[in-house]
Amino acid sequence: MGIPQNLRVKRVQSWLEENGLDGLLVSHLPNIRYLCGFTGSAGALAVLCGEGMLFTDSRYTTQAQVEAVAVGVRVVAGEAQSGAAKWVRSAKARHMGFESARVTVAAREALGRSAGPRVRWHPVRSCVEAFRSIKDAAEIQAMREAADLGSAVLEEVLPLVKPGVREVELAAEMEYRMRRRGAEGVAFETIVAFGERSALPHARPTLRALRRNELVLLDWGAILRGYCCDLTRTLYLGRAPAKVRRWYQAVLDAQMAAREVLRPGASAGRVDAAARRILRRQGLARYFIHSTGHGLGLEVHEAPRLGRGQKDKIQAGFVVTLEPGVYVEKVGGIRIEDDVAVTPGGIEVLTSASREFLQL
Amino acid sequence: MGIPQNLRVKRVQSWLEENGLDGLLVSHLPNIRYLCGFTGSAGALAVLCGEGMLFTDSRYTTQAQVEAVAVGVRVVAGEAQSGAAKWVRSAKARHMGFESARVTVAAREALGRSAGPRVRWHPVRSCVEAFRSIKDAAEIQAMREAADLGSAVLEEVLPLVKPGVREVELAAEMEYRMRRRGAEGVAFETIVAFGERSALPHARPTLRALRRNELVLLDWGAILRGYCCDLTRTLYLGRAPAKVRRWYQAVLDAQMAAREVLRPGASAGRVDAAARRILRRQGLARYFIHSTGHGLGLEVHEAPRLGRGQKDKIQAGFVVTLEPGVYVEKVGGIRIEDDVAVTPGGIEVLTSASREFLQL
Repeated sequence: MGIPQNLRVKRVQSWLEENGLDGLLVSHLPNIRYLCGFTGSAGALAVLCGEGMLFTDSRYTTQAQVEAVAVGVRVVAGEAQSGAAKWVRSAKARHMGFESARVTVAAREALGRSAGPRVRWHPVRSCVEAFRSIKDAAEIQAMREAADLGSAVLEEVLPLVKPGVREVELAAEMEYRMRRRGAEGVAFETIVAFGERSALPHARPTLRALRRNELVLLDWGAILRGYCCDLTRTLYLGRAPAKVRRWYQAVLDAQMAAREVLRPGASAGRVDAAARRILRRQGLARYFIHSTGHGLGLEVHEAPRLGRGQKDKIQAGFVVTLEPGVYVEKVGGIRIEDDVAVTPGGIEVLTSASREFLQL
Repeated sequence: MGIPQNLRVKRVQSWLEENGLDGLLVSHLPNIRYLCGFTGSAGALAVLCGEGMLFTDSRYTTQAQVEAVAVGVRVVAGEAQSGAAKWVRSAKARHMGFESARVTVAAREALGRSAGPRVRWHPVRSCVEAFRSIKDAAEIQAMREAADLGSAVLEEVLPLVKPGVREVELAAEMEYRMRRRGAEGVAFETIVAFGERSALPHARPTLRALRRNELVLLDWGAILRGYCCDLTRTLYLGRAPAKVRRWYQAVLDAQMAAREVLRPGASAGRVDAAARRILRRQGLARYFIHSTGHGLGLEVHEAPRLGRGQKDKIQAGFVVTLEPGVYVEKVGGIRIEDDVAVTPGGIEVLTSASREFLQL
């Protein structure tokens, strides 16, 4: 991956020139990984117009040299960020951008101390994040494979959805199966929620056992070669009541409506509105208590956000989740979530797990 | 847990009075959980002298009401932190602390906009973190159980350490078994590193298969009732060469030396120095490339840090890891990590997995 990362650093350098900056200090680890390939848990990347230099500590000496081939590597004794700031000073950079949505107030003060008064620090809200939102062909391929892995896991665990199984057990089985299929890890803690607990959109799995005639909400994701997938399916153990079947169909219709609007040039808010409109028609709008979706990539939540009134324009290369849901307190919740890549002409749905309402 | 959390909020309120502040805005989620029990992924807790108020979004309405019984709950449409800042303004607080090591520069600016010019924001480096470092009896008990869970997993996976097993498989098996034993999740991504890869202190598991006569480094941890354990063991598949056995003994001796110094009143740096001294005597000091340990609790890395020259005094109620190691590039690494609670009179080792050099 040496060449694309080299190009990515060059893109930041062009951006610096356009914005009148001498450099950018990259602090957010997924941004560092994107630009230079380094996957360690501590580091700072200084991109100056002429060169890029990764700073990390001695735990990562070997790893940084192997991974970060597109930039130089320096191992420092203290904080990576302080090391980077001192280097910036010695390189005589004057106007440095820093990631103001990633750097804490305390870390910003430390930067000032390390770099001295000659360096002026300018807040940058979104530079690398904006580049990252447009995936290239290799990234889309990695995400296709992650989505395939995630989709396959559902088939594997369906036989385990039986009376008596506990939420934590099912979560363990799903995570185990992702790992066995080669996932580097889970993209987030697997959500398994039975019955009325499915009305909590971010329920943590508990020791609660499944009973007949209950909803089963599963939300899981794997990381493969650094890239995330993120799926949700809602099942029913038994024959679901007509009301629940109607809710399921409304959520599925809402997702289909969002898909139809999702294409280059549409605003993110319009995609959200399309899903919301379907649920409103069914009298379910007040049960849809979150956004329709979010960007997906090296992070499980990244730009863009498909929420109410968002003005960002959809672009080819975006990969987003579409995940409308309804949550009725003390009754239950239904969510259907798929991962979708935006292509120049439309979309490609990456996740292939069945969206039929499975009544087991 | 209503009563201890109530007391925790009161402790912050006493701290506010001592420090001449009208309130503290708590942004760091583990701090919020510690103070009021809320486990959601988005929230802000405003503690004023008279009351505490948790702000979150509509995804967490039910969960916040169930969990955060020691404080009031308000569900807001936008950012939780902005909601909290507006409330602080309406409550006429003038001098507010904010967690400067947790709040980004961009979020700090947003705070100023939401609270208006009447509220002055004062950076607070460590308030709740300092309280959290001293565990009470219930917390120590939770950590004992987490440590037992983690220790039991090693026994379970030893039969799987055989030629041909892949790093990702062994990681999957360990994570699966933690879950099956009731873990809410893993405390961090399990590290499994074979042969020369064990020299990378934070290696991610790969498809690398185990061969005879190789080192096996396992570093894993579970979360149980919110609290983490964190263990490392190093094994050998076959009969280890004398040099490797000598390294193992040196690392184990280093841990024992650190244990002997770890007691109330010692400085954190002295604990680190004790481990380092043993390795120096064996000519291994340059291969010990990280700190001797770190605090453990609701987070897998928290205060204190047991590193070179750290002046913090060890206190009864601290729970820390002791994890000396040696890492020889292209050859391999050995680390032995246990979790230890500091008692008024000495220490209690929480993790019980065998520390013998297992040669399988």
